[in-house]
Amino acid sequence: MKIKLTLLSSLILVSGLVKAQDSLMIRNIYDEELVNGQCYSNLHYLCKNIGQRISGSENAQKAIEWGKKLMEGYGFDKVFLQPVMVPHWVRGAKEEGAIIKGDQRISVHIAALGMSVATPKNGITAPVIEVQSLKELETLGKDAIQGKIVFFNRPFDPKFIETLYAYGTAGDQRFAGPAAAAKFGAVGVIVRSLTESLDYYPHTGATLYVKDGVNIPAAAISTIEANKLSTMLKMRSLPAVKFYFKQNCQTLPDAPSFNVVAEMKGSENPNKFITVGGHLDSWDLAEGAHDDGTGIVQSVEALRLLKVMGYKPKNSIRAVFFINEENGDRGGEKYAELANDNKEEHIAAIESDLGGFTPRGFTFEGVSPALLKSINTNWGPLLAPYGSGVLAAGGGGSDIGPLKAKSKNVVLIGYLPDSQRYFDVHHTPNDVFENVNKRELELGAASMASLIYLIDTHGLN
Amino acid sequence: MKIKLTLLSSLILVSGLVKAQDSLMIRNIYDEELVNGQCYSNLHYLCKNIGQRISGSENAQKAIEWGKKLMEGYGFDKVFLQPVMVPHWVRGAKEEGAIIKGDQRISVHIAALGMSVATPKNGITAPVIEVQSLKELETLGKDAIQGKIVFFNRPFDPKFIETLYAYGTAGDQRFAGPAAAAKFGAVGVIVRSLTESLDYYPHTGATLYVKDGVNIPAAAISTIEANKLSTMLKMRSLPAVKFYFKQNCQTLPDAPSFNVVAEMKGSENPNKFITVGGHLDSWDLAEGAHDDGTGIVQSVEALRLLKVMGYKPKNSIRAVFFINEENGDRGGEKYAELANDNKEEHIAAIESDLGGFTPRGFTFEGVSPALLKSINTNWGPLLAPYGSGVLAAGGGGSDIGPLKAKSKNVVLIGYLPDSQRYFDVHHTPNDVFENVNKRELELGAASMASLIYLIDTHGLN
Repeated sequence: MKIKLTLLSSLILVSGLVKAQDSLMIRNIYDEELVNGQCYSNLHYLCKNIGQRISGSENAQKAIEWGKKLMEGYGFDKVFLQPVMVPHWVRGAKEEGAIIKGDQRISVHIAALGMSVATPKNGITAPVIEVQSLKELETLGKDAIQGKIVFFNRPFDPKFIETLYAYGTAGDQRFAGPAAAAKFGAVGVIVRSLTESLDYYPHTGATLYVKDGVNIPAAAISTIEANKLSTMLKMRSLPAVKFYFKQNCQTLPDAPSFNVVAEMKGSENPNKFITVGGHLDSWDLAEGAHDDGTGIVQSVEALRLLKVMGYKPKNSIRAVFFINEENGDRGGEKYAELANDNKEEHIAAIESDLGGFTPRGFTFEGVSPALLKSINTNWGPLLAPYGSGVLAAGGGGSDIGPLKAKSKNVVLIGYLPDSQRYFDVHHTPNDVFENVNKRELELGAASMASLIYLIDTHGLN
Repeated sequence: MKIKLTLLSSLILVSGLVKAQDSLMIRNIYDEELVNGQCYSNLHYLCKNIGQRISGSENAQKAIEWGKKLMEGYGFDKVFLQPVMVPHWVRGAKEEGAIIKGDQRISVHIAALGMSVATPKNGITAPVIEVQSLKELETLGKDAIQGKIVFFNRPFDPKFIETLYAYGTAGDQRFAGPAAAAKFGAVGVIVRSLTESLDYYPHTGATLYVKDGVNIPAAAISTIEANKLSTMLKMRSLPAVKFYFKQNCQTLPDAPSFNVVAEMKGSENPNKFITVGGHLDSWDLAEGAHDDGTGIVQSVEALRLLKVMGYKPKNSIRAVFFINEENGDRGGEKYAELANDNKEEHIAAIESDLGGFTPRGFTFEGVSPALLKSINTNWGPLLAPYGSGVLAAGGGGSDIGPLKAKSKNVVLIGYLPDSQRYFDVHHTPNDVFENVNKRELELGAASMASLIYLIDTHGLN
């Protein structure tokens, strides 16, 4: 009994020491970041000196070169590029435009959806039919839809506390709406911008055509003007409302591009990996600050933090700037493919692609309730004082998703910032550096570095 | 044994039902707020149609009339004013200005500290002595300070996770610095703006002179220009730097003003009160959006929510628009005095005065560890899904603070929003409506209504 007690108290002592070490390490990570953080100035450079960087563009290539140089400057063990072919969609040089033609002509703000085809040179003019869902297309049928522009106008549901769920449930209108409407003979599609915010920004984003379908042009309209159009359609006393829009986008042949990878080599398990990343490409309308410049600069910052703390990881740790998340996911797929080819074992992958807002925590994809409980019990108290205490079941992210198919034991983790402001700027001309808060960005980077440290030190099981 | 078991399972059943009722009520509160919330449009009116409303001003009176009318419109059981005399400080009609006079003349942005005296009509020009703390004044002594302008330049400590602590530890420079410097013969004081943000906004805020002290003029300087001044002072090769500033502020005789109070009468304990409030006055430089327009509109919204849900409170519930928090706290003192005179028993008071940012939770002042634990156990799981799960020891707020002296059992509670962005706008010309996010504001209002419901239904013990 006495021996047992001694053993027990030794264990408690060791466990107490480990906790104190972890706590100290995490405090040091935050101190370094909040005093000497570099992610905010890196983001400034990316947004202001490079700017928009849609896949296949000259700017995307500039961003790749910038990313490689930045990583090399930090002196990690290895920096390399992973070649990958990416879609090359361009909005076109000529201006997009749209007009509601009712009893008066009202110019409205639209933006072609990513991967959409162009309208004919002189645009399309057609009567409009408003629907709230893809299902409603079936109810209405071909007779009602043929020859018309379908206007998807189901708003965000404000009752979701996390706006990501509102995006998730409204998003089918944008990514699947145009292909569905084409089946019923629609000549074009206008989609209400995916945001709860009432403003004049059209929110672009990818739409997916289907194989052997008719590809009809599709654009997003600002929420204020979606409301206006809807109101005019309801005024039956007026002449039938028509909608005109013109866009010049096209899909060019696939272009060569790259993921950019930095690596700190593991001292015990060099072939086991913990990866943290975001996506380097952005939509073409703005600077891609929150989507996903913040994820990029936070990822490399997490590695920088561990390096300047003198931390020697057991496992190899990588920061990955994935290419082509917005309209193809080719970078994420290539990374997983190469990991498989090279027989790299991935323990965990963390993705930051929900904006650089104040941290709330992390979501863990497909982990067992027991593991999630253990993560909460052991690491929750270490992260909660920094506002990152939410460690919940949830998605990882689309760049790291393909790793799962190749490596069943990998734990996919999404960085979870506060979501309230994200869809105010998401995919709009307003996604600019000025809307990122320095401390929020830094706290996120420090939380990622802390989680990587915990996973590397204690494992995930 | 059997009876006991039955009793136990009944208790569990009842407890389960109560939790389900609470959970449903809170969900309904959030639904109502996120779908039909009025606090954002109320804030818009306050900011854009009234604007700045410093105590004693015509605009403060307009805000009082607006607040009363707003409350009356919601049909609460009682709406009334509490008369109180308030300080009446004015910045003055003429422009403030400052120049660093080194090898060149550099105009810089200043703002007189609230309650400061004016400079002489032609301003003050004097050599500058930079200090990092009030203590340093003692080290330097009268010989070094006499006849000079003292420049307090200790920056925010970025290592605090909550910026409120950084404010707390740097704040003495502003509120006590001028009085302390005057004792050593300084002729004026310039204080580095209380923010970590590097920008050109001077942040005003109250300074406190001491009885029988010499009142010297004091102003805040923007952080970028504080850095510039500091750099110039360190360039010993240049001629000694002088600083010139001019301000025209003055303190007029106290003015009549009012707290504005709305009340829902308690069905069981009409003389027991739960109060929620913010302050109606603001600094004069901007619209007082986050400080404290958001607290005002959230407080009345909390009552509106309970009313539209058809909730009949056991205890009386009040929303209070306190006057004069910024430069006197007279409204808070008057409220406590009248509560005492009228023998009102206050169970709890909640204050929202840390900005209208995304909610984190609430802080409880001076409650026992046992009570705090019970609050966390019972209410934590109900509030955490809404992002308001932090229920920690901490401050209540300066408007509700005086209640404690009069009513020992009152629990003082501070609404705790995320603090990262607050000192970017606090007391600056940039504290405007546009910097408030609709959903963040609404989530805060719903969290306050939910907490009031829980306190009213279950008590606080």
